[in-house]
Amino acid sequence: MEKPTLPKGTRDFGPAVMAKRQFILDAIRRVFQKFGFQPLETPAMENLSTLTGKYGEEGDQLLFKILDSGDFYKKIFSPLTNRSIENKLKDLFSRVSLRIEKVADLKNLINDILKELEFEAKEYDDRQSLIIIKDYVKADTEFVQHEIVKFLTSREKTGDSKKDVQSLLLQIPNLVETIFYNLNGFETQRLKPRSSKQLQAYISEKGLRYDLTVPFARYVVMNKHDIPTPFKRYQIQPVWRADRPQKGRYREFYQCDADVVGTDSLTCEAEIILMIREVFQSLKIEDYTIKINHRGVLTGLAELAGAKENQTSLFVAIDKLDKIGEEKVKEELLGKGFTEKSIKTVFDILNFQGTTSQKVVFLNDKFTKSEAGDRGVSQLSAVLRLLRDYNSDDKHVEFDIALARGLSYYTGCIFEVKINNVSIGSVSGGGRYDNLTAAFGDKENLSGVGFSFGVDRLYDAMEELNLFPKEAQASTKILICHFDEETQRFGLKELSALRAAGIAAEVYPDQAKMKKQLDYANKKMIPYAIVIGSEETKNGFLTFKNMETGDQEKLTVQQIIQKLKA
Amino acid sequence: MEKPTLPKGTRDFGPAVMAKRQFILDAIRRVFQKFGFQPLETPAMENLSTLTGKYGEEGDQLLFKILDSGDFYKKIFSPLTNRSIENKLKDLFSRVSLRIEKVADLKNLINDILKELEFEAKEYDDRQSLIIIKDYVKADTEFVQHEIVKFLTSREKTGDSKKDVQSLLLQIPNLVETIFYNLNGFETQRLKPRSSKQLQAYISEKGLRYDLTVPFARYVVMNKHDIPTPFKRYQIQPVWRADRPQKGRYREFYQCDADVVGTDSLTCEAEIILMIREVFQSLKIEDYTIKINHRGVLTGLAELAGAKENQTSLFVAIDKLDKIGEEKVKEELLGKGFTEKSIKTVFDILNFQGTTSQKVVFLNDKFTKSEAGDRGVSQLSAVLRLLRDYNSDDKHVEFDIALARGLSYYTGCIFEVKINNVSIGSVSGGGRYDNLTAAFGDKENLSGVGFSFGVDRLYDAMEELNLFPKEAQASTKILICHFDEETQRFGLKELSALRAAGIAAEVYPDQAKMKKQLDYANKKMIPYAIVIGSEETKNGFLTFKNMETGDQEKLTVQQIIQKLKA
Repeated sequence: MEKPTLPKGTRDFGPAVMAKRQFILDAIRRVFQKFGFQPLETPAMENLSTLTGKYGEEGDQLLFKILDSGDFYKKIFSPLTNRSIENKLKDLFSRVSLRIEKVADLKNLINDILKELEFEAKEYDDRQSLIIIKDYVKADTEFVQHEIVKFLTSREKTGDSKKDVQSLLLQIPNLVETIFYNLNGFETQRLKPRSSKQLQAYISEKGLRYDLTVPFARYVVMNKHDIPTPFKRYQIQPVWRADRPQKGRYREFYQCDADVVGTDSLTCEAEIILMIREVFQSLKIEDYTIKINHRGVLTGLAELAGAKENQTSLFVAIDKLDKIGEEKVKEELLGKGFTEKSIKTVFDILNFQGTTSQKVVFLNDKFTKSEAGDRGVSQLSAVLRLLRDYNSDDKHVEFDIALARGLSYYTGCIFEVKINNVSIGSVSGGGRYDNLTAAFGDKENLSGVGFSFGVDRLYDAMEELNLFPKEAQASTKILICHFDEETQRFGLKELSALRAAGIAAEVYPDQAKMKKQLDYANKKMIPYAIVIGSEETKNGFLTFKNMETGDQEKLTVQQIIQKLKA
Repeated sequence: MEKPTLPKGTRDFGPAVMAKRQFILDAIRRVFQKFGFQPLETPAMENLSTLTGKYGEEGDQLLFKILDSGDFYKKIFSPLTNRSIENKLKDLFSRVSLRIEKVADLKNLINDILKELEFEAKEYDDRQSLIIIKDYVKADTEFVQHEIVKFLTSREKTGDSKKDVQSLLLQIPNLVETIFYNLNGFETQRLKPRSSKQLQAYISEKGLRYDLTVPFARYVVMNKHDIPTPFKRYQIQPVWRADRPQKGRYREFYQCDADVVGTDSLTCEAEIILMIREVFQSLKIEDYTIKINHRGVLTGLAELAGAKENQTSLFVAIDKLDKIGEEKVKEELLGKGFTEKSIKTVFDILNFQGTTSQKVVFLNDKFTKSEAGDRGVSQLSAVLRLLRDYNSDDKHVEFDIALARGLSYYTGCIFEVKINNVSIGSVSGGGRYDNLTAAFGDKENLSGVGFSFGVDRLYDAMEELNLFPKEAQASTKILICHFDEETQRFGLKELSALRAAGIAAEVYPDQAKMKKQLDYANKKMIPYAIVIGSEETKNGFLTFKNMETGDQEKLTVQQIIQKLKA
């Protein structure tokens, strides 16, 4: 038997990895809840009508589709096989080939065949096939019937049969061929799908969710009248994408989103900054940058460059600044028809050096004639002012005029978080959008703002920075080891005492060598062991061992509890 | 646009439900971890080779299968349509029907047609079709070529062409029919699937997991050398079954499993009882029964009834005792060929009334000649003795000789937990099994014992018993309300003070009527509100409102923090 494997692009999270992931997710969840976000979970499967058309053509192709349950085969293929039809028709052929004396003979023959087909179709519970087959056979046999009537009539008249016999014989194979052909075409492919897309439409009506935003929007539309407004939800669940797997890109991965919809208050933007900082504080990540920008600022930039109609090309190019550098972006813009002058205007602004407040002053001056730009800058400075109202500051926040966040649906502030001095890209991002639910025909123009943590990237960054605390990785605090059944049994009540004190503890279940028991503790990263020998059972002083240092001391179980709880 | 819907048998878990579910799952997780179980998560998708054949025929049919990504259509259907082939062949037919003077003419004709087919196949990037079509055309045309050569040769010899012309004409339609038929069969269905099962095998190689046990076994086989032995894992994840949805039965639902594999120590069985009781204690479920039995006891029973060869029928019948009652079970056994006497033997034992220890004594006496029965009773009493070693007792535990747990793969102790006086079936169950990994060809005979909580049923039972504490349902503790922008801004630093003290708090983000703000608090079940008016901004005494009682008092934010933390 072959060794089992995992599907490409998927992963198991074993205990060690899980402990670290839970450490990250718990920190995030705690902060979300502290800020009034409530959990939501949606099913992994959504109707394809919910998912398709929301992520563009490319996204649609990356949806994992689920085969309909039930007999989807019957929808496409008739259960009546080629073979069974073929046999009936061969029968017809051979009988027609015999001299037919009367028109009635042929009629009876056809009726017999139809009856047999009907019987067979019933057996397969396949009425629809039956009706269509009957229609085919009738149409085609009516033709041969007509020909034969003509032939019989002419023979009776002229008595000259030889030529007509030949013409009949020539006729018959053609007829059978036609019936064959019609039936084959019909019964091997009932719905005649002509492409993957069509075939899939016949056999799949559900897919795995591609992100958490569309299910969230679907939930909001379906529960409009029951949810509080504004609605603050967080959602931590896996999503699936049929992408080509590669390093750091998986086909199943967690997303971790928080959104507020139903308000355009900028306190939400300010709180996103507060939340990111609080999460990073609990993760002990210190050196990071929250880049912030506003779509209005980008539009203002396009207006100044005289590229209002050509914004998209500008944003696409600017978005690559980090990756390909200034010169290449300039080349791209030239290629797209931007003038040297407008490119200079753009880069004079992008390259402005200064603090966030200096940038605000600088842009305020530039955007006197751009309504969008002005709105962008004033909302950004309002968010920064709000941070002070929260008794906080703009630490870690950097106004980055070049931040574009792709061509996403954002309409207001946009965010992106980078941990400095690690090889990992952005670990969080988000922004304000209008019309969350418009794709579902909702006309309420629900504005919202949301952001998302990249759990896999946070994990990699924490590993690179060696930030996972040891305690977070140990699940059991103490292992009880023993020399025989009697000492093990003695250990069980000590075990209960430890657990009653809220300490995660276990006993090595089998009778085994001490080395094996201690190896087990090490493999599970259990930091302490209690070793119980016959002496211990007599005086109640247990050997308490620190697995890291190897230090041992004799303590009662109560003293051990004191020590571990301290 | 149509209102979006959820796929049949799936659910959203909105904030209120999520809070309650998390309350249950947190309690379970805490206990699992305290007893040394480590978390595992496996991907939702598994290879079908991992999943199929593990759940029986019925289970296989309930697997949700995932469509392969990429162009699965081409695997089944050739992109060369019937129509394109038909046209080529009609061409062949019409040209062959003309008098062919030389063998070379026919050869050229066939070559021309093959070239055209090749061109078309290339256009469709469909080499495989091409090769097969060429083979068909070659084989079939070789036959007609042979016939024509014969004919031409004979005509040259005899000069008598009339009869041979007729035989040739008769030959040609048959030939074309054969080619037609072969090609149709081929090119409309390349792989000719004859059933749903076959079709699915061509287009799907992955499925959604059906339970957590098989992925666990797969994980153990794949990570044998890295995991600690014994391996204690818990796993809380959704599973999917393409079952007919009905009340209380979903197509996507959570399972919540804990297993120890790699040891046959009965301390594991004892700890399962301890864990169940600890979970129920934190959920405040008081009136419940942990039924326990042993497959050996059931085998012993079958032996006493002289039905050792017919055990399965006996267990199937006994398993229904709860549902259909004694009389019906007896009828069923009679129907299966059990004698009145053996049925009496069985029911004398099943109906024995007494405490667990009385049952042990009673059965010990009965099973003097049944090795299996003896093993069962002695293991059960060892588990009960171990509970005392754990400084505990057999509270809630009931030895139920009739407990059979279906026809599952259990080989030792079996468990089932029922909450008394609720309309819900068992909420937890499990047992010991041998050979967890045997289905993957593993020869290590890994024995293990596991159990599982039914989260949906626990949820329903808790609702029925009204056991969810209010605090568990409130996510935010306090809402800051305000009358205008100025009072809102004042509130932001109070908000930060509350959060800094670890209190989940939020501010109503928009400027809105006080009623709307308080309604929001009620909708989110937020228990307290702070109302900030202009007076409050001056003296720092905030209006602190208990949302349930309506009581109000004037307190500083520090006093409020004291009160909430008390």
